[in-house]
Amino acid sequence: MSVSEPFSFRLTATNGPARTGAIGTAHGVVHTPAFMPVGTQASIKGVHHDDVRASSAEILLGNTYHLMLRPSAERIAGLGGLHFFMRWPHPILTDSGGFQVMSLAPLRKIAEGGVTFRSHIDGEVVELSPERAVEVQNLLGSDIVMQLDECVRLPADRGDIQRAMKLSLRWAERCKRAFEGAAPGRALFGIVQGGDDPALRIESARALVDIGFGGYAIGGLAVGEPQEVMLKIVSETTPVLPADRPRYLMGVGTPADLLESIARGVDMFDCVMPTRNGRHGLAFTRFGPINIKNAHHADDPRPLDPESRCPAARDFSRAYLHHLFRSGEALGGTLLSIVNLFYYQDLMASARAAIVAGSFADFAAETEAQWAVKSDRLSADP
Amino acid sequence: MSVSEPFSFRLTATNGPARTGAIGTAHGVVHTPAFMPVGTQASIKGVHHDDVRASSAEILLGNTYHLMLRPSAERIAGLGGLHFFMRWPHPILTDSGGFQVMSLAPLRKIAEGGVTFRSHIDGEVVELSPERAVEVQNLLGSDIVMQLDECVRLPADRGDIQRAMKLSLRWAERCKRAFEGAAPGRALFGIVQGGDDPALRIESARALVDIGFGGYAIGGLAVGEPQEVMLKIVSETTPVLPADRPRYLMGVGTPADLLESIARGVDMFDCVMPTRNGRHGLAFTRFGPINIKNAHHADDPRPLDPESRCPAARDFSRAYLHHLFRSGEALGGTLLSIVNLFYYQDLMASARAAIVAGSFADFAAETEAQWAVKSDRLSADP
Repeated sequence: MSVSEPFSFRLTATNGPARTGAIGTAHGVVHTPAFMPVGTQASIKGVHHDDVRASSAEILLGNTYHLMLRPSAERIAGLGGLHFFMRWPHPILTDSGGFQVMSLAPLRKIAEGGVTFRSHIDGEVVELSPERAVEVQNLLGSDIVMQLDECVRLPADRGDIQRAMKLSLRWAERCKRAFEGAAPGRALFGIVQGGDDPALRIESARALVDIGFGGYAIGGLAVGEPQEVMLKIVSETTPVLPADRPRYLMGVGTPADLLESIARGVDMFDCVMPTRNGRHGLAFTRFGPINIKNAHHADDPRPLDPESRCPAARDFSRAYLHHLFRSGEALGGTLLSIVNLFYYQDLMASARAAIVAGSFADFAAETEAQWAVKSDRLSADP
Repeated sequence: MSVSEPFSFRLTATNGPARTGAIGTAHGVVHTPAFMPVGTQASIKGVHHDDVRASSAEILLGNTYHLMLRPSAERIAGLGGLHFFMRWPHPILTDSGGFQVMSLAPLRKIAEGGVTFRSHIDGEVVELSPERAVEVQNLLGSDIVMQLDECVRLPADRGDIQRAMKLSLRWAERCKRAFEGAAPGRALFGIVQGGDDPALRIESARALVDIGFGGYAIGGLAVGEPQEVMLKIVSETTPVLPADRPRYLMGVGTPADLLESIARGVDMFDCVMPTRNGRHGLAFTRFGPINIKNAHHADDPRPLDPESRCPAARDFSRAYLHHLFRSGEALGGTLLSIVNLFYYQDLMASARAAIVAGSFADFAAETEAQWAVKSDRLSADP
């Protein structure tokens, strides 16, 4: 796709609420359902860009909060934008920075105008307004820009959830105005808030659709609530969103979360789980998660999965991977991160094929049955 | 080369004392002068095997001390040997474990029979005799096995140096007997000791040649003495060693150390410097070492070297590499380690070509002149 073509979303097949399609951006096409590896500080932790691309990832997520503090959006813009800076010439989505402000920054203060906080790096006072969040993401050159929102940690009082949702809606309008005139091939996404309250979620989604965005995210989930609460909210929200715009469930999740959410009409995901769990010794495989640090792998000559598309899953024995973790060799975390990035991408590719074939429910059931370990054990993994 | 062919060394050209040739082993050919990256715990720290191989490394060094303690030589043998275990089907040299015992193990005790120490991992008492050192390396399946020796840290009394040198000679004889009957395509190297005393070095070298080894190492250097002392000892030692056997200067060194030692007739080197310095932000380049953490790189769009054979040196800006180090992203150390591994291999390839061309002295002088920073500053790098 040329940079002069507009941002687009084309559905190619549906299978119940599950959908498959393609997002067109100035930096290329993203096939959905899509999983976005997280490149927090312009790097997928411990993994070389070539391996990220080899996993078939078509789009990365960058964290505005981290990048605006270091090396700064202005510096990245001066160096040619985030794609050129980190040598990822493919699509990039950036979050708005709001979520990390809430979770990382000391002394944060939320007001109508925006959020003020101290940098966790040097203590400097930083202001992040809806307009500045868009400006920063424009400087980075993101293909998909996220509105600034306020995300409430669950459980929370309905009053707090409602106040944050309403504030996020007012910020959504300001972000939309700030994004006007952006180069073609890029889009701004609104973010549905409303905590675990279906009525507030529906109100938020409807109001965002009235404002009108290139795509819609469901935010404020996977923040401590049980999986069934998350899935219930997803089920209630997606029918309110327009069919012809991509839907992005932020910060989710386990392989099971992804399958269940695709079944409810979600198109896009991001999560640190493949790389964070990989660094901690957990490999995602067809047979469920494998904790390679367990002693019983020490003499196991088998690879993680001889039929995997991922060389690291085929070429190295479990005994060798176990040894790397026991010896504190960083290569272990790198190899398992690569294994997991491949696994997530292959899960998405299989989901897309199953939707086209009209057999997504069977595919999801068979895949989940093959996992030896329930996905809810993953969240207990360090 | 087939596994049934014997270990071999063939000189193809000499240029003064400098030599180039090829070592034949059961796992392939090693062109000399050769630099061996150090895979301490069956991993080149932070670097994927594919990148190590892409650097043109033909042989790795494994550390017997580390591998015998974890995961253990017997376990590696049960898993098919070190080549298969770590998926490096090319030549491997292992040290004897003696050097690490001296530098890492608590409560070490040296006696005629061998060395007794406590494992730095679990405190277990371990005995390492000359016979056990060979047995461990046979279990690992090393192509080049090193004798057990005693290495004295300099400066030291002549009496201590002499005693350790004599003990190392008696251990050399025992190692040779223990190595008898080893599979073809593998070799045992003796190690010249004698500290900074030329007479003791010559005595050690002559005695080892009388015993007869597949190759000869110069040990006990780069242990705190000035570079000129090291080079003087190398100059005095290499003429005593047979021309038709490879010569290996252990644990050396900076790029300048390598060029100066090749000029004095050394064929093989190993050092952690490319990877350790890479992890600490120091890149070796044609223009001398570059400390990428320095603030003036923050806005520098230039790559480390646009003409490098190494993709990491060509593809990423200094600004991006600087950002990775400032952000604590492990990818920075990985990329600079790869840059340095390529640099060392390319330096060796250029040295080999210059020796064939009969212009090694000019090549070394031009290369050293191009380095902006004197190599002796490297040792001060963290």
